Amino acid sequence: MTFQVQIKIMPLKDLLDPQGKAVLGGLHNLGLGGIQDVRVGKNITLQIEADNESAARAIAEEASKKLLANAVMEHFEIEFVK
Amino acid sequence: MTFQVQIKIMPLKDLLDPQGKAVLGGLHNLGLGGIQDVRVGKNITLQIEADNESAARAIAEEASKKLLANAVMEHFEIEFVK
Repeated sequence: MTFQVQIKIMPLKDLLDPQGKAVLGGLHNLGLGGIQDVRVGKNITLQIEADNESAARAIAEEASKKLLANAVMEHFEIEFVK
Repeated sequence: MTFQVQIKIMPLKDLLDPQGKAVLGGLHNLGLGGIQDVRVGKNITLQIEADNESAARAIAEEASKKLLANAVMEHFEIEFVK
């Protein structure tokens, strides 16, 4: 079976996010003053061929830990897209 | 009121995603052969001060169109985080 998995990777809450701060400055320069904070992360979708959902989740977790996310600075969330 | 808004920005379906293809190659090299396709996009969270949800959504849309997403190559989805 083929599973569509979405992995959200965001900078850890306690860390500064310089990219987010830069985007926030840009938005304020465009006159969008109502925006108070910006955090920028990644959104990765994987199409996984696996026997069942738990096997697909295991593959997605391994991919996140080994390559996609940097555990020192980021946390990730795995979600199945139906 | 303060709203937490999440904007998912992904490359358009019909376009090649070279970054995704590179990640797919990396995952195969790590032995994760069950993964058939990868697409890489952005996930941006905004904290918006606005009178109500529709005003917050208008700000998020303006931010996406003017700065965050490139409409030629990407589509975006706005979601409120409760």
